[in-house]
Amino acid sequence: MKLTTLCYIEKDDQWLMLHRTKKEEDANAGKWIGVGGKLENGESPENCLYREVFEETGLKIKKHRFRGVVTFISDIWDDEMMFLYTVGDFEGSVKDCDEGELCWIAKDKIPFLNLWEGDRVFIELLCKDAPFFSLKLSYEGDKLVSTELDGKSF
Amino acid sequence: MKLTTLCYIEKDDQWLMLHRTKKEEDANAGKWIGVGGKLENGESPENCLYREVFEETGLKIKKHRFRGVVTFISDIWDDEMMFLYTVGDFEGSVKDCDEGELCWIAKDKIPFLNLWEGDRVFIELLCKDAPFFSLKLSYEGDKLVSTELDGKSF
Repeated sequence: MKLTTLCYIEKDDQWLMLHRTKKEEDANAGKWIGVGGKLENGESPENCLYREVFEETGLKIKKHRFRGVVTFISDIWDDEMMFLYTVGDFEGSVKDCDEGELCWIAKDKIPFLNLWEGDRVFIELLCKDAPFFSLKLSYEGDKLVSTELDGKSF
Repeated sequence: MKLTTLCYIEKDDQWLMLHRTKKEEDANAGKWIGVGGKLENGESPENCLYREVFEETGLKIKKHRFRGVVTFISDIWDDEMMFLYTVGDFEGSVKDCDEGELCWIAKDKIPFLNLWEGDRVFIELLCKDAPFFSLKLSYEGDKLVSTELDGKSF
């Protein structure tokens, strides 16, 4: 199972979103996602988060909130365990990213972006300040076919 | 990286502890640990938790609390990502376990058991009702050589 981190960096009611337009053969092509990536050997989720955010955005996290764990099950891609964060305190300024365009998007505009169906589920949980959650998202191709929150279907 | 769950089942100020005495070639031989095991294909951490607790103890979890994520880094064993829970509400009665003896141990006696050094760290966090945490424990052999809590050394 692939282990990854994802975070939404917050500033003035906006989130830093990555429009995936640059990578070749990218399962995320055209989608808007947060910032993050794969855990490397010897890393905790936080080690990965701080490294990936710096590499992709040039920003240095000063404080994070660990918000949830997301288990992705898929019939066509590798299963994935994702550690999900929000970041409200950072330093530096956003640099170009070689995976796509980084844009600050007003939080109330985010649901209108081209998102993965399951991302809408955890974005809603984050926006309503849900307590720490464990979410399981099962996909058939691009289609979300079942959802469990803290071990219960919903 | 190996993905596992671990939980401490609580009843009347006691925890259900497993004394690992039965498995052959067991890295945990002689140690006292909680109940849990490895994630199988298609499982979320909670799916694994409920299955493993039932298989190892005969108990059916009615409610769990997800307490933390623990990253184990080792120079001799596979690295491991462990999802940590407490369970205060369950039904059924404890059956024999083929991995060791299951015993209810008073919480204030647990620090005197033969535990992994790092387990003492998260047991203390659980006992003082710490908010959700991410802990990284790095071992050289049996020796705990560094500890990070929520991305910071301590």
